[in-house]
Amino acid sequence: MDEFDLIERIRRVVARPDAAVEIGIGDDAAAIHLGGGRRLLLTTDALVAGVHFDPVAESPADVGRRALVANVSDIAAMGGRPRWALLSLILPATTDAQWVEDLHRGFAEAAAEAGVVVVGGNLARGSELALSVTLVGETQLAPLRRAGARPGDILFLTGPVGAAAAGRSAVASDSHEGRNLRRRYLHPPLRLDAAALLARTASAAIDISDGLAQDLGHLADASAVALALQLDDLPLAFGHRAAAGDAARDLALGGGEDYELAAAIPPANLLLLSRLAAEAGIGLYRIGEVVAHHPAGTLVGIERDGTERPLGRTGFRHFP
Amino acid sequence: MDEFDLIERIRRVVARPDAAVEIGIGDDAAAIHLGGGRRLLLTTDALVAGVHFDPVAESPADVGRRALVANVSDIAAMGGRPRWALLSLILPATTDAQWVEDLHRGFAEAAAEAGVVVVGGNLARGSELALSVTLVGETQLAPLRRAGARPGDILFLTGPVGAAAAGRSAVASDSHEGRNLRRRYLHPPLRLDAAALLARTASAAIDISDGLAQDLGHLADASAVALALQLDDLPLAFGHRAAAGDAARDLALGGGEDYELAAAIPPANLLLLSRLAAEAGIGLYRIGEVVAHHPAGTLVGIERDGTERPLGRTGFRHFP
Repeated sequence: MDEFDLIERIRRVVARPDAAVEIGIGDDAAAIHLGGGRRLLLTTDALVAGVHFDPVAESPADVGRRALVANVSDIAAMGGRPRWALLSLILPATTDAQWVEDLHRGFAEAAAEAGVVVVGGNLARGSELALSVTLVGETQLAPLRRAGARPGDILFLTGPVGAAAAGRSAVASDSHEGRNLRRRYLHPPLRLDAAALLARTASAAIDISDGLAQDLGHLADASAVALALQLDDLPLAFGHRAAAGDAARDLALGGGEDYELAAAIPPANLLLLSRLAAEAGIGLYRIGEVVAHHPAGTLVGIERDGTERPLGRTGFRHFP
Repeated sequence: MDEFDLIERIRRVVARPDAAVEIGIGDDAAAIHLGGGRRLLLTTDALVAGVHFDPVAESPADVGRRALVANVSDIAAMGGRPRWALLSLILPATTDAQWVEDLHRGFAEAAAEAGVVVVGGNLARGSELALSVTLVGETQLAPLRRAGARPGDILFLTGPVGAAAAGRSAVASDSHEGRNLRRRYLHPPLRLDAAALLARTASAAIDISDGLAQDLGHLADASAVALALQLDDLPLAFGHRAAAGDAARDLALGGGEDYELAAAIPPANLLLLSRLAAEAGIGLYRIGEVVAHHPAGTLVGIERDGTERPLGRTGFRHFP
């Protein structure tokens, strides 16, 4: 079962025309016209114990926070403002009520930080602990999509990549660097301020939490363009290179779980973006550009000496 | 861990005032003001393999349908029109892709029947098959709530109760009655037409799929009233009494999984409701009334000879 084949089969089975649905399955969130220039954005994401988190090593508040952040990142990638969340929990009958309450506390604190109100949820019994979150957002602008990047556009990231994956395996390391990486995994930042700038300036954007190379591949496919990454420009978190050694770059390209955004910026908007980012004190990292001299869907890495090499679409797949 | 205590703890932890949120946690769906008299309704519900369905004995299309119907019932209970759905799936890595496609086909067919468009979803790996559905609805009217029933209001049901629970255990019975009950469990009807009438006439309503007595208890609590049920008037499906014998009434009161609605109708609206129901050919079953001579939250059953007895709040609890 190939994950992306299966999603395409599902898309075909459920497809049904509806005048209100501007974007259905296939982007970071769905977009629905409400009239009067208003649009709803809808996304859902799940965290499963043992796959996406370790219920023993991680605090319930951190797990709750990450579940919210993962969904905020999808709304942010569409240029939207997250508003209302629902949390559907599957719990073993032996789960401690305090754990469940603390999970909701972390979820609600991240929600408050993101301007989101938790309006509903569900509790169901199961043998495996899992969270499914649905987040509803709004936007007055045309949603940012994966499609829309054009040759000449410059690629930016909203933060370092690979840190979460390095941090996830850095449990044992009690160094300052190890704790920093660990925090990037356990307590990812929200990128709503950066997303607000991208919403006004980008031609395309995507959440890269399944792995930078894999998710940029989706953007390249949807935009029908090739992307060239300056490999030495990939932003790495403090301590990442020391902790990961030779694996540092592979983690940056395919580690996943960084709730950062990648966006393509048309050259005409660069000055505006840099001015807005400087005024607001928001970091953005230039990592490459959209190129015309490779076939659509291609991802190439450029070394410091200018040599190019094709990049594999590394990242997280549920069904490899 | 008591389920309803836990929900109350969660409600307190996540509570945050928001001018747009008209109804948060604690009813069948949340309601959000969009302005201009428009409201969004949001609900989420989950089905877990081995708890809510049997992935071997039940077809994936039936499971998908029931997942959609369960959520439609919550939107219908608020007097809303369901519009957009998201399906978050947790799948063991060994799950057959055809099974997943067929599940989505059943989900999408029920969605089309309900006027719903499937706009998104998620696939995650886990060891236990589970579906979490989020459904977004709309309403122009004030949402129907669990609160609002007044002494003298008449209680109605939109269909028979206990049939699904009888049908769930009627696998072996290949009689006509057994197949009818089985179908009530596997392929529950949508009650959107009835819900549209209730939205215009009811003082309060609730989805009773966790068990009639338990869910009427929620309505009695929220409305701060007592309810008296004419036990002989509880509508039973064809074959229910024959199949269930002495357990027939207990199944009707506490069996659960019937995606029917219970509503309280003020006497002044009875004529309008019966005319509308007759015109549209919609069956509604009178089962009792809201009474003033018992403490708020009380549920009593009245036998054919007029004797009253207190009713336990029987129904489905995930964490008994």
